[in-house]
Amino acid sequence: MSDTDLWTPNPELDLVIERDIAVPVAKVWAAWTKPELLKKWFTPRPWQTTEVELDLRPGGVFRSVMRSPEGEEHVNLGCYLEVVPERRLVWTDAMRAGFRPAPEPFMTGIMRFEPRGDSTHYVAMARHVDPATRKKHEEMGFHEGWGTTVKQLAELLEGM
Amino acid sequence: MSDTDLWTPNPELDLVIERDIAVPVAKVWAAWTKPELLKKWFTPRPWQTTEVELDLRPGGVFRSVMRSPEGEEHVNLGCYLEVVPERRLVWTDAMRAGFRPAPEPFMTGIMRFEPRGDSTHYVAMARHVDPATRKKHEEMGFHEGWGTTVKQLAELLEGM
Repeated sequence: MSDTDLWTPNPELDLVIERDIAVPVAKVWAAWTKPELLKKWFTPRPWQTTEVELDLRPGGVFRSVMRSPEGEEHVNLGCYLEVVPERRLVWTDAMRAGFRPAPEPFMTGIMRFEPRGDSTHYVAMARHVDPATRKKHEEMGFHEGWGTTVKQLAELLEGM
Repeated sequence: MSDTDLWTPNPELDLVIERDIAVPVAKVWAAWTKPELLKKWFTPRPWQTTEVELDLRPGGVFRSVMRSPEGEEHVNLGCYLEVVPERRLVWTDAMRAGFRPAPEPFMTGIMRFEPRGDSTHYVAMARHVDPATRKKHEEMGFHEGWGTTVKQLAELLEGM
């Protein structure tokens, strides 16, 4: 199976957001991997990212906490699967640290970063177990939510 | 979190088999990664491994078929998570190719290979989501099954 086969979205199972960001790929990678930068764009405003824990290696923990203006909190707990600097970052909520299977798997996130001169073509994909889970994620507001965070990411980096 | 923390077994959740094998680590790695070798030891006899599909990279498929003398077949379908030549091989049935979450996760297999002179210290660990799943795996015959395959692996390699 080629890379194309592994990373090409399956339209019945995956959801995808793409965007060109007008900064070099190193800056996009930094925004995903430095906690203080990640906090600035990772959660659609007015919610905020209040905590981030990154153990940036296969099997390492990826944990974040989002908080609403009213103080409601949501914890995202997952595990990094693949860390290819400036090219690909993969994590999942289907596992905990040390690749331990998790009780309620929902999705795997696959971020791909393609250098295009001084810009970056950014492809963010959510992979699901079946069409029903993909549909649920879409109805929960995938395109609005992920679209907003990618917009926040681009605005942060292009304004720096 | 240190490597020790990530790979140290949790006695409430993990099952482990260890054995010294009197061949260099390169041979043990080959027995796990070359399909024709894997078929010779991977399934407790008199069952046999009749098919093996290895796409040996993170996100690649790991599929095998076991067959009983009476023709009963069992398919193991999983995904490689980490491939560190001659040191660590990790795969799980909690994912399919391309890191897609799987419908019925059971375990992650973490194989560690430690060179000790001309021998290899071999540590095979099964990680589970909770104590009940660990207990179920133990009652299904983990120690007999994995113990037998490790014995078959050692006998194959030490006799070559």
